Amino acid sequence: MSDKINRVVLAYSGGLDTSVILKWLQQTYSCEVVTFTADLGQGEELEPARAKAQLMGIKPEHIFIDDLREEFVKDYVFPMMRANALYEGCYLLGTSIARPLIAKRQIEIARQVGADAVSHGATGKGNDQVRFELGYYALNPDIKVIAPWREWDLTSRTALIEFAEKHQIPVPKDKRGESPFSTDANLLHTSSEGKVLEDPWEEVPDYVFSRTVNPEDAPDSPEIITIDFERGDAVAVNGEGLSPASLLAKLNELGRTHGIGRLDLLENRFVGMKSRGMYETPGGTILHVAHRGIEQITLDRGAAHLKDELMPRYAELIYNGFWFSPEREMLQAAIDHSQDKVTGTVRMKLYKGAAHIIGRKSPYSLYSEKVVTFEDDQGAYDQRDAEGFIKLNALRLRLLGRREG
Amino acid sequence: MSDKINRVVLAYSGGLDTSVILKWLQQTYSCEVVTFTADLGQGEELEPARAKAQLMGIKPEHIFIDDLREEFVKDYVFPMMRANALYEGCYLLGTSIARPLIAKRQIEIARQVGADAVSHGATGKGNDQVRFELGYYALNPDIKVIAPWREWDLTSRTALIEFAEKHQIPVPKDKRGESPFSTDANLLHTSSEGKVLEDPWEEVPDYVFSRTVNPEDAPDSPEIITIDFERGDAVAVNGEGLSPASLLAKLNELGRTHGIGRLDLLENRFVGMKSRGMYETPGGTILHVAHRGIEQITLDRGAAHLKDELMPRYAELIYNGFWFSPEREMLQAAIDHSQDKVTGTVRMKLYKGAAHIIGRKSPYSLYSEKVVTFEDDQGAYDQRDAEGFIKLNALRLRLLGRREG
Amino acid sequence: MSDKINRVVLAYSGGLDTSVILKWLQQTYSCEVVTFTADLGQGEELEPARAKAQLMGIKPEHIFIDDLREEFVKDYVFPMMRANALYEGCYLLGTSIARPLIAKRQIEIARQVGADAVSHGATGKGNDQVRFELGYYALNPDIKVIAPWREWDLTSRTALIEFAEKHQIPVPKDKRGESPFSTDANLLHTSSEGKVLEDPWEEVPDYVFSRTVNPEDAPDSPEIITIDFERGDAVAVNGEGLSPASLLAKLNELGRTHGIGRLDLLENRFVGMKSRGMYETPGGTILHVAHRGIEQITLDRGAAHLKDELMPRYAELIYNGFWFSPEREMLQAAIDHSQDKVTGTVRMKLYKGAAHIIGRKSPYSLYSEKVVTFEDDQGAYDQRDAEGFIKLNALRLRLLGRREG
Amino acid sequence: MSDKINRVVLAYSGGLDTSVILKWLQQTYSCEVVTFTADLGQGEELEPARAKAQLMGIKPEHIFIDDLREEFVKDYVFPMMRANALYEGCYLLGTSIARPLIAKRQIEIARQVGADAVSHGATGKGNDQVRFELGYYALNPDIKVIAPWREWDLTSRTALIEFAEKHQIPVPKDKRGESPFSTDANLLHTSSEGKVLEDPWEEVPDYVFSRTVNPEDAPDSPEIITIDFERGDAVAVNGEGLSPASLLAKLNELGRTHGIGRLDLLENRFVGMKSRGMYETPGGTILHVAHRGIEQITLDRGAAHLKDELMPRYAELIYNGFWFSPEREMLQAAIDHSQDKVTGTVRMKLYKGAAHIIGRKSPYSLYSEKVVTFEDDQGAYDQRDAEGFIKLNALRLRLLGRREG
Repeated sequence: MSDKINRVVLAYSGGLDTSVILKWLQQTYSCEVVTFTADLGQGEELEPARAKAQLMGIKPEHIFIDDLREEFVKDYVFPMMRANALYEGCYLLGTSIARPLIAKRQIEIARQVGADAVSHGATGKGNDQVRFELGYYALNPDIKVIAPWREWDLTSRTALIEFAEKHQIPVPKDKRGESPFSTDANLLHTSSEGKVLEDPWEEVPDYVFSRTVNPEDAPDSPEIITIDFERGDAVAVNGEGLSPASLLAKLNELGRTHGIGRLDLLENRFVGMKSRGMYETPGGTILHVAHRGIEQITLDRGAAHLKDELMPRYAELIYNGFWFSPEREMLQAAIDHSQDKVTGTVRMKLYKGAAHIIGRKSPYSLYSEKVVTFEDDQGAYDQRDAEGFIKLNALRLRLLGRREG
Repeated sequence: MSDKINRVVLAYSGGLDTSVILKWLQQTYSCEVVTFTADLGQGEELEPARAKAQLMGIKPEHIFIDDLREEFVKDYVFPMMRANALYEGCYLLGTSIARPLIAKRQIEIARQVGADAVSHGATGKGNDQVRFELGYYALNPDIKVIAPWREWDLTSRTALIEFAEKHQIPVPKDKRGESPFSTDANLLHTSSEGKVLEDPWEEVPDYVFSRTVNPEDAPDSPEIITIDFERGDAVAVNGEGLSPASLLAKLNELGRTHGIGRLDLLENRFVGMKSRGMYETPGGTILHVAHRGIEQITLDRGAAHLKDELMPRYAELIYNGFWFSPEREMLQAAIDHSQDKVTGTVRMKLYKGAAHIIGRKSPYSLYSEKVVTFEDDQGAYDQRDAEGFIKLNALRLRLLGRREG
Repeated sequence: MSDKINRVVLAYSGGLDTSVILKWLQQTYSCEVVTFTADLGQGEELEPARAKAQLMGIKPEHIFIDDLREEFVKDYVFPMMRANALYEGCYLLGTSIARPLIAKRQIEIARQVGADAVSHGATGKGNDQVRFELGYYALNPDIKVIAPWREWDLTSRTALIEFAEKHQIPVPKDKRGESPFSTDANLLHTSSEGKVLEDPWEEVPDYVFSRTVNPEDAPDSPEIITIDFERGDAVAVNGEGLSPASLLAKLNELGRTHGIGRLDLLENRFVGMKSRGMYETPGGTILHVAHRGIEQITLDRGAAHLKDELMPRYAELIYNGFWFSPEREMLQAAIDHSQDKVTGTVRMKLYKGAAHIIGRKSPYSLYSEKVVTFEDDQGAYDQRDAEGFIKLNALRLRLLGRREG
Repeated sequence: MSDKINRVVLAYSGGLDTSVILKWLQQTYSCEVVTFTADLGQGEELEPARAKAQLMGIKPEHIFIDDLREEFVKDYVFPMMRANALYEGCYLLGTSIARPLIAKRQIEIARQVGADAVSHGATGKGNDQVRFELGYYALNPDIKVIAPWREWDLTSRTALIEFAEKHQIPVPKDKRGESPFSTDANLLHTSSEGKVLEDPWEEVPDYVFSRTVNPEDAPDSPEIITIDFERGDAVAVNGEGLSPASLLAKLNELGRTHGIGRLDLLENRFVGMKSRGMYETPGGTILHVAHRGIEQITLDRGAAHLKDELMPRYAELIYNGFWFSPEREMLQAAIDHSQDKVTGTVRMKLYKGAAHIIGRKSPYSLYSEKVVTFEDDQGAYDQRDAEGFIKLNALRLRLLGRREG
């Protein structure tokens, strides 16, 4: 708190917590607050955030509300999908991938309004503080960062609500008591963690899920869909061309209906602890499976295996908040280079919580029925070549064997 | 065919193809044939193989029939499961992992009976020839290898059957016509490929599946099970301690019932072509998910992420047939080193084709509710530490940002 | 030899061996031979090759002699230097990197003259056959390849010379006896292997070296030079701007004088055996050290460490002949992405066989004396940040420690 | 400073800085100080440290002076050498590898004397604080750590000396003025950094070097030596068997004489900044080259290449202070697994700053003159195998080429 702050751009959801932060910033730093509210597809009205901000004295020209859904999917979700990114073998990085975009817009707005600081509502235990702040610093090395949850003393729910009431911040009825868990949502996923989820032996209660039906309640008949890809990105569902955000929304509907994309994960945070989260990524899960499917038929083995080896590192970088880093960009350059011919169509079956590839085709197919067939291949492949191939692959093993013998 | 062969150990299933090979070896090389038939849990009677071999003139002491199920699961499947191995993101390597064990036994038997050659029934287009022969050469660098499919002219079904009939080899009725696909099976999986599966856009017909019910026909209610692990290996299902092979068999039953472990994959063979296969790995799929689940709570992040980065290479080595190689053994040493405390219990839900973790616990849990909690953590974690953590992680990004600016 | 060949493009040096091949091709395949002789800086006159080819009946329009030195350095050597590529920790890949370019030109010429085949003079034991042929097949999948050393029976020196004499191919005096070793040379290096070098315990005799003075005979005073880089590539020596090939030639002179770049290596060939080679890479060694030097001051840690981790794979791909492969290109895309600001100057000391960095500077320096200084840094770095940084890095280790305790 | 400290174990060199720390700890924390002085081969008398500690009121039973040289080389330097570890392509990690051992002994002593805290003299900008403290926390998660340089206000030289004089701490004459650079030394290396070295364009002045003669002053004739290895570790020099520490000391003498192991490096610190250091690692440099030499002849390609790919990560872990981490131990397990047959002898030439391999032999050699020879190999290798090997390696590239065409 040593530095004087003049103007701060706050990532503002309009909810209770960030409203308290807004007021606390005004009081503690005697500074002007600029609010930024992004539509990333979280499914909430944004205009109430404007009204609330105005009520708390924010000038109209200092209230920013942006629809970032298309940018989010096109420039963040899709590049990540090209990598088949999974953190710890399972997690589709739905929260991680949204943070850099929010950070980027905050820094842009700060430049625009001449703010010297930015602020966010992430706690001091989580990954999101890291993701926000690495983004801030990468894009503006001289920006000041205020992380209220690491500074203030409103650490209990009671203290927070008292502060809100004292400052005429409306407290929604359902926020009076303790919420049984905490969530984050955007067009890619909803995550839930904390409280009722903190015992990793206990099953996640059904009321925690909000984006997908329980697979047991999903339709009893499978649904077959197709997804078209162009150069690594999905462009159509069931033959209908869609913009990136519309396409993901469409897959979210399909995924919701069939109960696809639920994940109960005990994961390792960048800050050093294990936490248990529940994720719902309906459309993203379908997309992930689909992308692997189209790669199967269009990607060369060398490229595919290199991608598989680089992927865990790539996913870790995004999880840890290093989207705006040279090494993430280098890996992206390698990945994107491989996607030039990743064009074609996959057929999928959606049923009771799962999405499976059942067919794939491409104008750039590398699959050769003529070469692979058990039938007469008319000389496409000379089986005698295999002997030399094996013999020379075996040579070093034989030399080793001789040494042992 | 240049070298004189005296005695050859043949991997003999008792089926039509390897019976023809047996006869062809006797004729072509004028050599003694020793048959080796392994029970790897493929679910077929082995005694008929003995009878057939005897009929074809093999001496009783030259007929080897071994039950290798426990060795297979304990020394091959389990070590691989410790690695969470998946080839090309999907395939549990059910065929790949069986070949080294068969090769090892053939070489042992060759030593025992004084044979100078070994032989197998794999074709010249596939991976299995490589896996067999790399195993042979690694374990006996001076062994001679006969791969009839690469040598003979019985390449059409008709020619093969004519040869069989001419030599009084019984041809089962269902082998007279063309089989619509070809299969391999063991305790871990059944694979199917070829013919009706060769068009990768066409869905795999239902009659191809043999190890799992169609998820649509699986029970309408989920089943909850527990699996106990000790030092990285599964030891009990629903609290009942089981030997490795019995445990996998038990999980296979559960997986069959719930339609778990079907995979339609278009994969890259080591010999350079793409092929389309269908795999059923019921118990193995459950085990794979379960192992990740127990690692989540017992494995340190550093170990877990290193494992994830090494895994694709490890899986590729097994797929390509390098089980008996120094680099596979080095990776195994690293992986096994990490499993010392991978002990505990996972709770899983099996339902309509999928297996999900819903709970995990361990006496060696690294999950600390006290550290992670949103509630008062009594000083277990100082949120202010996060500031320094972020600042120093950001330092290089800020220096980069200054250069750009 | 099954296929009918009409016209073949031979990589022709003009030496005894490829002259014999030329004649053998004419005889064996009754085909037209097109010769291609490349100047890659090997330091030999090329016109004698033309004369010899004409003498052997090659039509003037079928004799191709190209100066590829600039293309070689700019498009092959420099991209590889950006990667700091070293095979097995030591070898600068001087032979490996030249083969793809020769293969590419042969395929271009084949297209131009309507040839259906290509041929080279590499033996069946070495890596070069693989590098040539993988290049051929990648660039023209339907080309026919003739590798005389794998086909013919002229495998002894005597037989070869008899064949030459019988066909009026001039045999240079020094080729009559056995050459005591075999060499390959281009602008990047000279390699020697075979015969007198085959006992890896014996020191390489002094007469084997041709490109560098013995360090013991090098000047007794060091020489200081500067090299300027732009975007990862060297552009000037001692302030004098030079084209890629001229620059490498200049560094070769400097390296020769100071005895720099000798390497006695026992390496692992792709075909599975170990071999012992001696390499002289005078300018390339200086360039390698220089490039690391300029990266030290301009490359971010994340980029630098990622490059270091990818490098062994990249080097292996080049060594094994996979220059024209998707995975090499993907790695190149990642590497090249990192080089945007690798611009500046290094100062080096050359002395008695070694080249050392003694200074580096850059307009894009990421080194901040203000941040790093032991003196008062005026707040550029807050030492208290280190506590949080360490604490959170330590958290998982402490949780592990508690489990052990 | 919130917690009450009762007894603290200080890593005490006996020099001015740690003497000031000793006094400052006594004053600031009113706690008992236990001193620990280690002989890691830094080449200083240790008894003066005892006298000084006693003078400052430390009880005799609280003064620990240990000769850790053999443990240092055997359990830290040698395992690292097995990995061929180089940080950022150059640095032999001489400082990094000593810190974990010091930390381990401090924690052992703390346990023994019932201390609740440990302390060290590393600054808040460097890597050493991280290495010490990660070691402390890994080995005793509940230990308190005091890092005076991050806490106190004695940040200028003047303030430090005033404090010393005020408290009767003897200030050596040469410490009165500013030292022109700062050093760290142990049996493996001496590092120098700061002040006169802070301009990375300026050559390191000659007076900075203390462990090696200037190569220009080294003998004009090369010296030939042999080093014997057993299972990856050096055991004899010129045929004379030596303990680990004696062997390294012997190689240090040889390296000093010939000016070997000087390195001017601009490196990336873990805390996020670039720094410029000068390292002298005479014996370690010889050992590094020698170990690669013996591996060349005894290590299989698969093992060697895997080691090369893992090495940068392994080196980074040690540099960053993660010696006592599961991932370092996993990598060590893999590396150690490969060293079983790394036994034999290398012959080296030392001359004017460089050490080169000129010969290597081993009872476990994998080099086969019979296989590699250009002469008649009597069937050890069938050159025709190469055709199939190349054809199948090329298959995927040809399929790619057909797609392009």
